[in-house]
Amino acid sequence: MDEGSRANFMRQLVEGHILIPMGVPGVFGRSALFEDMLTKLGARIDAWARHDGAERVAFPPVIPREVLRKTGYMDNFPQLCGSVHAFVGDDAGHAALLQRVVNGHDWTDCLRQTDLVLAPATCYPLYPTLTGGLPPGGRLFDLASFCFRHEPSDDPARLQAFRMRENVRIGEVERVKEWRAMWMERCPELLESLDLEAILDTATDPFFGRGGRMMKSSQATQALKFELLVPIWCEDAPTAVASFNYHGEHFGNVFDIHTAAGTTAHTACVGFGLERIALAVLKRHGLVAERWPVNVRATLGV
Amino acid sequence: MDEGSRANFMRQLVEGHILIPMGVPGVFGRSALFEDMLTKLGARIDAWARHDGAERVAFPPVIPREVLRKTGYMDNFPQLCGSVHAFVGDDAGHAALLQRVVNGHDWTDCLRQTDLVLAPATCYPLYPTLTGGLPPGGRLFDLASFCFRHEPSDDPARLQAFRMRENVRIGEVERVKEWRAMWMERCPELLESLDLEAILDTATDPFFGRGGRMMKSSQATQALKFELLVPIWCEDAPTAVASFNYHGEHFGNVFDIHTAAGTTAHTACVGFGLERIALAVLKRHGLVAERWPVNVRATLGV
Repeated sequence: MDEGSRANFMRQLVEGHILIPMGVPGVFGRSALFEDMLTKLGARIDAWARHDGAERVAFPPVIPREVLRKTGYMDNFPQLCGSVHAFVGDDAGHAALLQRVVNGHDWTDCLRQTDLVLAPATCYPLYPTLTGGLPPGGRLFDLASFCFRHEPSDDPARLQAFRMRENVRIGEVERVKEWRAMWMERCPELLESLDLEAILDTATDPFFGRGGRMMKSSQATQALKFELLVPIWCEDAPTAVASFNYHGEHFGNVFDIHTAAGTTAHTACVGFGLERIALAVLKRHGLVAERWPVNVRATLGV
Repeated sequence: MDEGSRANFMRQLVEGHILIPMGVPGVFGRSALFEDMLTKLGARIDAWARHDGAERVAFPPVIPREVLRKTGYMDNFPQLCGSVHAFVGDDAGHAALLQRVVNGHDWTDCLRQTDLVLAPATCYPLYPTLTGGLPPGGRLFDLASFCFRHEPSDDPARLQAFRMRENVRIGEVERVKEWRAMWMERCPELLESLDLEAILDTATDPFFGRGGRMMKSSQATQALKFELLVPIWCEDAPTAVASFNYHGEHFGNVFDIHTAAGTTAHTACVGFGLERIALAVLKRHGLVAERWPVNVRATLGV
């Protein structure tokens, strides 16, 4: 039932020209309506971020590979990373490359790994820019970027390339934890204004392999991650549309970020999967914006 | 002088927190001011595209690798392509990968090439979605995406990751050529409203290697490419901020797109390098928006 519901909704999205298939699972062009929904959702988060006095920064979809090495990302999520490789050869090398391209073979051995990877989350490139001392009270950022996770899927709510909006708090432990709690309290309102039922729950990240089980258990025990979930496909397996993550001193240690008092900075982030929220609206209220409930149209400005 | 001017401007951009260095040449975070400039520039292009009745579509920063094979992109621009590679192994493979990561070595032989590459231009993923017959009069699209070109540089106007805005016309040869001519006429106004001097000239793409010289010569002879240039660094070597490209039947042939009359469709595109226009404004008028000329502030809504 779950699978059938997904496939059916995907067909509607494609026939309605909301998502435009590009020939690779989880990679789609997006219609004007869909883009406008994301812009309006972003505006709601803007308002909160401005109210809080967040500094706004946008990052490109590629980030330094070195960030993943330093943070231990490849220990935990090697399966999700997209690494960027490029051709740096001469005419002879080019001829060898073209042979592989034309024959539809793998080009790997004609390419070299660059210093870049696709951003797996919006906040990763921020931390290395903060090395050093924070002002009293710490700092607060409002971030946006395209993210990539290598998990090809037929689920329209599990895209390989998607927009993530994050806010990040850096400073003393108590302030950081209070800030995360505030976001957990304020976020359900956004989903309620879209007539979506949201459930807040503790969660774990998709840690890789045998070692991953221990990481998940530790993350759950310490309540490091919460998610706001919306039933898109069925009540039993709701989809996460926002997450609230406390990282302790992890990024502070790795990038040597310290508070005005000289202690290692704590960090937390709240992240929104904008496409997922838009898809939840479309699944719940249909693909014709004019027929959505008045309050939903008001929230999304249609 | 050129180099010094560039280095000096880059220092100003970084000290003014307009561009945020990420440790890799040509890859930067962007400030709220910079993002707002791009949004406003986009709104000017929106107005033209809406006036023309263009269909708006947004594409993600990754596109199918197959598009590059079919279009012959790797024949001409192999040096610019960013190919996406991923880890698909098990726990044993993970251990081997981690060893390379931790030691700062190349990970290539632990990864496999995916079906995705970074988009080198915004319009490439559009054409394969149009296979088949066009309606009478053809079609018109308004596109946006993040693009990637592997050309690490210290020139702030030569980013590896940048926003491209494109409009694309597909149909009968005469309509397509007229449409391109119309954009060449209307675009200088946008730059004049920013107090930037713009020069329209024929141009060539950076075709690779020995064979590339012939391609350049052929492209120039046929006047397939025009560029709108703005002197950012010096009068002698102005920077292209927009390009106007007529592709003939190339994409129509490759993706089997035909007009209502049954002939192979012709295509043309106009592309804007939004970051370059914003950088030209900052170089010309300074980094403090409040001190820009009144008309420039009006155009950029500050």
